[in-house]
Amino acid sequence: MEKLYIGVDLGGTNIAAGIVDLNGNIYCKKSVRTNLPKPEAELEQDIYNLCKSLCEENGYDISNDIISVGIGSPGSVDGKRGIVWSNVNFGYENWRIKENLEKLFGISVYVENDANAAIIAEVMAGNAKGCDNALIVTLGTGVGGGAFLNGQIYAGYNYAGLEVGHIVIEKDGRLCNCGRKGCFERYASASALTRDTQAAMNAHPESLLWKLCPDIEKANAKIAFDAMEKGDKVATEVVNTYIEYLACGLVNLINIFQPEVVCLGGGVSNQQQALLDLLQPLIDKEDFARNARERTKIVIAKFRNDAGIIGAAMVGVNND
Amino acid sequence: MEKLYIGVDLGGTNIAAGIVDLNGNIYCKKSVRTNLPKPEAELEQDIYNLCKSLCEENGYDISNDIISVGIGSPGSVDGKRGIVWSNVNFGYENWRIKENLEKLFGISVYVENDANAAIIAEVMAGNAKGCDNALIVTLGTGVGGGAFLNGQIYAGYNYAGLEVGHIVIEKDGRLCNCGRKGCFERYASASALTRDTQAAMNAHPESLLWKLCPDIEKANAKIAFDAMEKGDKVATEVVNTYIEYLACGLVNLINIFQPEVVCLGGGVSNQQQALLDLLQPLIDKEDFARNARERTKIVIAKFRNDAGIIGAAMVGVNND
Repeated sequence: MEKLYIGVDLGGTNIAAGIVDLNGNIYCKKSVRTNLPKPEAELEQDIYNLCKSLCEENGYDISNDIISVGIGSPGSVDGKRGIVWSNVNFGYENWRIKENLEKLFGISVYVENDANAAIIAEVMAGNAKGCDNALIVTLGTGVGGGAFLNGQIYAGYNYAGLEVGHIVIEKDGRLCNCGRKGCFERYASASALTRDTQAAMNAHPESLLWKLCPDIEKANAKIAFDAMEKGDKVATEVVNTYIEYLACGLVNLINIFQPEVVCLGGGVSNQQQALLDLLQPLIDKEDFARNARERTKIVIAKFRNDAGIIGAAMVGVNND
Repeated sequence: MEKLYIGVDLGGTNIAAGIVDLNGNIYCKKSVRTNLPKPEAELEQDIYNLCKSLCEENGYDISNDIISVGIGSPGSVDGKRGIVWSNVNFGYENWRIKENLEKLFGISVYVENDANAAIIAEVMAGNAKGCDNALIVTLGTGVGGGAFLNGQIYAGYNYAGLEVGHIVIEKDGRLCNCGRKGCFERYASASALTRDTQAAMNAHPESLLWKLCPDIEKANAKIAFDAMEKGDKVATEVVNTYIEYLACGLVNLINIFQPEVVCLGGGVSNQQQALLDLLQPLIDKEDFARNARERTKIVIAKFRNDAGIIGAAMVGVNND
């Protein structure tokens, strides 16, 4: 029988759990509302109940069929000791989630920061499979990151590292929520691309963007790519500027880490090969090791919508 | 008797060797001209001869008194296998320095990139002693870096990582030798500070800088700090702008790595506490983890002029 793991994507809005195999296939999944705020013990019981009913409804028995449970949590997480140090969504400090959940589950439980879980999934079964050195950069609401270095998760001394969205690439540039000016994520997140698209629409009533998206409030990170493909000049400029900033921040990360692979995740990465084709020439020009015999490859992350569940399950795989 | 190691600082101009103890004390040292170009075997013999005469002149015997030989080399170095992949100064490729030198020395030889050797020295016996996660950032001709992460050197997949001077902090800014525009080292290296000081002198004939340094060609990274201390407005502006850019790049690195310690080395770090006092308030404002319970400390690297020799020796200590 396949080795099976439970992955739990612990979000502020929903808790999603799935039964996952070594290759990252999801056999079944289920979710419930998180319904915060609530005490830690109650949330732990919710997680257990969700996993228990997921198993029961699908004919699995936790103690006999599941090897371990992995939890992907936002916040700063000490994966080795299984403690969520702090998590602003939940309002917990020093949450001994591994210890507490192992009492409920009766099998091994592992926890990691969700971005770290995502790179573990790519390294274990995704598009960075087998790499000892790989990064994931997610282009979503913000720009997030996770790093697998020398064959291990790198989280930083205080488990708060890899805030790759908060490196300044344009000194005194756009004001960021973090208080700095010119952070990478102010230019390269899906939200930034959406805002820039909306600004271009307001400045250019003639743009095809309006045809694709008559309600400007509904603009997203996709329409500029769509309009560009149809030859719209305004959209082409929006995308090209976006790509320039994205390449700038990515080359910064490449020059620092020189990983074997950088996986791109998050909404913008849905553009897949079109995104890579635009990015690669700029990276080829600026990568400090562009003449080295081995170079970093930029790829799209394999795990998409269920990346949270699969990543969490792979935290368990990685620890087994 | 003290455990003793030989450290060899292999430069394009000089080869310097020293006998070093576990605490980073140098017992004796000696150097010769590198005299490039020459074949690998000849350079290897030069290294061996230098170490042999260093020992003989000081009453040591390599096979009995020395535990290992460490080499700090520029270029991309595979420390695990003891190979210098490529080194533009020497013109070698795939230089199997460990294997070849062990035949000459008859004891263990280890090799690392020189920036990696520097952070090993700080972690083993310097101002990041005992840290599992620490960086060194050298503010010299360029801006260089070395990283010790999760208790190991991190060199990157292709041994070309940690080019921390080549992260863009001002998009489309000053042109860098690497081909990018706005690299950290164009603003934060000792050379950049010198150039900015000279530009300020040319623009301000009234500045005290001219009194401290009547020959503008002899301006260095120190005089702006000296003139600032004496109340010179022009120098104060030069230094404040320099510190702003330095803090910007350092916070980028902190937000990525969140190491326990960042050691500052290179010429500018000779300003010691004065430099730290200027930097810290800017870092306190922008560090993403400024409210975390544990925060990165910025310190001056302990090992100064002989950092190359001590670092190289410590590569051996770290491998024992």
